[in-house]
Amino acid sequence: MTDAEIRPVCPLPLLDHDTVQMAHGGGGRLMHDLIDRVFCEAFGPDRAERVMHDAQRLDMPGTRLAFSTDSYVVNPLFFPGGDIGALAVNGTVNDVAMAGARPLVLSAGFILEEGLPMETLWSVVQSMRRAAEAAGVRVVTGDTKVVDSGKADGLYINTAGIGVIEHEQTVGPEQIAEGDAVLLSGDVGRHGAAIMSVREGLAVSEPIESDCAPLSPAVAALLASGVRVHCLRDLTRGGLAGALAEIAEASGLHIHVSATAIPVQENVRGLCELLGLDPVHVANEGRMVIILPEADMPAALTCLQAHAVSRNAVRIGSVDRSRPGRVTIESEIGTSRYLDMLSGEQLPRIC
Amino acid sequence: MTDAEIRPVCPLPLLDHDTVQMAHGGGGRLMHDLIDRVFCEAFGPDRAERVMHDAQRLDMPGTRLAFSTDSYVVNPLFFPGGDIGALAVNGTVNDVAMAGARPLVLSAGFILEEGLPMETLWSVVQSMRRAAEAAGVRVVTGDTKVVDSGKADGLYINTAGIGVIEHEQTVGPEQIAEGDAVLLSGDVGRHGAAIMSVREGLAVSEPIESDCAPLSPAVAALLASGVRVHCLRDLTRGGLAGALAEIAEASGLHIHVSATAIPVQENVRGLCELLGLDPVHVANEGRMVIILPEADMPAALTCLQAHAVSRNAVRIGSVDRSRPGRVTIESEIGTSRYLDMLSGEQLPRIC
Repeated sequence: MTDAEIRPVCPLPLLDHDTVQMAHGGGGRLMHDLIDRVFCEAFGPDRAERVMHDAQRLDMPGTRLAFSTDSYVVNPLFFPGGDIGALAVNGTVNDVAMAGARPLVLSAGFILEEGLPMETLWSVVQSMRRAAEAAGVRVVTGDTKVVDSGKADGLYINTAGIGVIEHEQTVGPEQIAEGDAVLLSGDVGRHGAAIMSVREGLAVSEPIESDCAPLSPAVAALLASGVRVHCLRDLTRGGLAGALAEIAEASGLHIHVSATAIPVQENVRGLCELLGLDPVHVANEGRMVIILPEADMPAALTCLQAHAVSRNAVRIGSVDRSRPGRVTIESEIGTSRYLDMLSGEQLPRIC
Repeated sequence: MTDAEIRPVCPLPLLDHDTVQMAHGGGGRLMHDLIDRVFCEAFGPDRAERVMHDAQRLDMPGTRLAFSTDSYVVNPLFFPGGDIGALAVNGTVNDVAMAGARPLVLSAGFILEEGLPMETLWSVVQSMRRAAEAAGVRVVTGDTKVVDSGKADGLYINTAGIGVIEHEQTVGPEQIAEGDAVLLSGDVGRHGAAIMSVREGLAVSEPIESDCAPLSPAVAALLASGVRVHCLRDLTRGGLAGALAEIAEASGLHIHVSATAIPVQENVRGLCELLGLDPVHVANEGRMVIILPEADMPAALTCLQAHAVSRNAVRIGSVDRSRPGRVTIESEIGTSRYLDMLSGEQLPRIC
């Protein structure tokens, strides 16, 4: 799939310039035009709210909040199943949701490369708008900087997100306990494999689409259902293995999972074999693990499976005290080995 | 002044690598070491709070908040009177304060260039720590990405900030009224002039130091004093002229200022004359305008002058209805002209 097939069509001429100029980051008339016609057009509900603020005032529905940020430098900007814009929304939405919060608002900071086609920026911003609508969040404040041609690979985006915690549970790795069940919300490795297949120009029989999606609706339903949730973690850089290793280390408990229980799409498995990678180390952008009391597991699975993003949720393992701070994985033939985080990602610039 | 004179000394070896590696952004062991030894060391109060979270939970002292973000791409990274780290803290702190809020927490997203000396990163992070302490805010969540050598000019930083609004006033350009006084918190043009003098290698008789500083303590005092405040605006990209033009446009009123009332440091005026620039268009990072009822002006000036950051606060003009949406400036010889925002900044990458 080429960029042209993935991108929607931009209603040019948007602005007096077809490409981003240094002056679009200069605080003057050009920057105001860009903000007004590209950013406010996508994110601002109406002209009346477009008064230029240094900061956006918010009336939050509570005082218990979660706050997170991520910068996005993915290369290429467009890939099957998503683009840097959808990633910048869903990535931060998911981070906020992992604290057990309902994401409400995002900020968006753009670092644009001089010469970036205005149409590319427009496509990315439209994708952010759609992703924000799907996740039920609003982009309420932003910033634009322009750097010299040759820097920034087109554009980098930072988003920060605020969510509200509307329940009394504390969700975090220090909450997990002996006897807890470990659930996985779906198949692993698709985001990383999609990026790799595009970037390396590898022909895969069936194109691999990123799993980029908001986890927040499934998390909200899970918490609203009354299920006790000990820990939530999305499986981005470092993949399933990295997330489990972090949780085991933070909790001081042992997490044991079964390789045969972990769903991996056939084309992802094929690509990983070709590249000598283990899908449990590959990045995802719409997958999470949920660790919770064994007794609450059946209800949690039913709840998760009712949401498209987690319809293939499965139990993959459990928590005990046998190997404090470590993760083990049982292979198809019944042998176990330690599962560690790698020293780095196999492939840089995945998100 | 060289970089070596400005930077504090780093207690190396901090990590196993003297420079940033791609793997430091990869979600694995190297990234965790970097977060632990550089970021948490500076921003985390103690080891117990360093549990890796996707998002930071916050208990806010109210539900009326202000939220803002800025990315910082200043070139060079270190300059007289500050660096990209101090700028990244003060810039966002000031944006939050301009909504009449007390800044409480920041996020920090780092985009690091592969090969960046670890010592440079350490210096910038230490500067952020000091700036955060001075402004009374905490850096509570963050993110690290690494991009290929040749991108990102060392590093880019995004910060997002949350503040709490603890009074009943609405502060914004739509609040200004005929008869309001326009105050300026100090001399203008120093930040932009400092960057220009370093970047262009211009010898100035007396080195120009950036005015980079937190405005939030002065704003908090002003609001706590009972003074009515209609509008606050910091004078970053676009300078005093850009800020006033935005406010006039948003309010539909006319702002008239006197050139002779606007303080400009002698060395800044000299540099601007050399480069053919008007200091009212040059960026500041620790200056603001305050627009408020004439009757409250004397109390406001007294309050502002009690704070170091605004000790030279002066009245520079007033608001009327004569030229809706426009700004005029009266010269030394009594003639008036329109003051518009420029199409871009005179010099890119100023913040």
